[in-house]
Amino acid sequence: MTTANPDLAALIRTIPDFPKPGIQFRDITTLLLDARGFHASIERLAASAPTDIDLIAGIEARGFIFSSAMATHVGKGLVLIRKDGKLPGATIGVDYALEYGTDRVVMHEDACVPGQKVLLVDDLIATGGTALAAVRLLRQAGAEVVGASFVIDLPDLGGAEKLRAEGVPVTTLVSFEGD
Amino acid sequence: MTTANPDLAALIRTIPDFPKPGIQFRDITTLLLDARGFHASIERLAASAPTDIDLIAGIEARGFIFSSAMATHVGKGLVLIRKDGKLPGATIGVDYALEYGTDRVVMHEDACVPGQKVLLVDDLIATGGTALAAVRLLRQAGAEVVGASFVIDLPDLGGAEKLRAEGVPVTTLVSFEGD
Repeated sequence: MTTANPDLAALIRTIPDFPKPGIQFRDITTLLLDARGFHASIERLAASAPTDIDLIAGIEARGFIFSSAMATHVGKGLVLIRKDGKLPGATIGVDYALEYGTDRVVMHEDACVPGQKVLLVDDLIATGGTALAAVRLLRQAGAEVVGASFVIDLPDLGGAEKLRAEGVPVTTLVSFEGD
Repeated sequence: MTTANPDLAALIRTIPDFPKPGIQFRDITTLLLDARGFHASIERLAASAPTDIDLIAGIEARGFIFSSAMATHVGKGLVLIRKDGKLPGATIGVDYALEYGTDRVVMHEDACVPGQKVLLVDDLIATGGTALAAVRLLRQAGAEVVGASFVIDLPDLGGAEKLRAEGVPVTTLVSFEGD
């Protein structure tokens, strides 16, 4: 690892059996603690993203970290995509399936101007359930989703492929095998 | 409002009766959507903060937004303070009282090197319960809390004064009367 080119994968810690047995959790907190690694991740996300963007969208809660830093890095505003009940104004929402049951993401109904070009940013793409729901939500608000950027890809779970099949260009910085 | 000096208070929307009747919720999502306002808030937080800092600390979930942008703006790492059960590694925690019952904030036990100078960043200080718990948690981890920065102060609720009484210098950008 050099100062100029920190090895992001080496800065991401793997915690076995979190949040449940059998899951290898990819922990970005060790990357965030490393100033050079954290800032390199934002620079690389920005360098690989489409340049014609009006707005960055971030998904609660870890996604707020990378989306906010991206928004200030590229000089754009930030729209929040949250779990239901957390946003104070009138919202629109999209339900999506979990392994057991369903979950819901919402955004303020007046957050996007129709036609705005939005880049979705999150820490990790796994099965893509939340990201796909976020894309549908942004489109429901009239936005054009011009791309989706993630620090970590778990390609065996197929989420990035699902987003691409929906017409969303996807960029990721680091890939880990398995789930 | 000029381009160079956006009026941050005017960009923060007030939503009555959220999350419960009688509360005037100060909504920073409208500030975040405004690229100039959002970036001005980060620049002003950075300009008013102590300059000798090793690390930025951010409190889940809205606090992640401003702490992350601050960390990349000032070139430091970021330590996450979360609700219990969200961090994958071994944690230390501090309980604090709510109006009814208690809550708990945690951080990874190995996140800080003892003696590190940490600046706490959050969106809003009200009664200061969570912020004070976060200060105690960081001190338990061996950190020196050199300051706490908030976009919004609700001075009638006294949180900033409580932090100052604990020896933490506090800076805020915008004040609103009432709760």
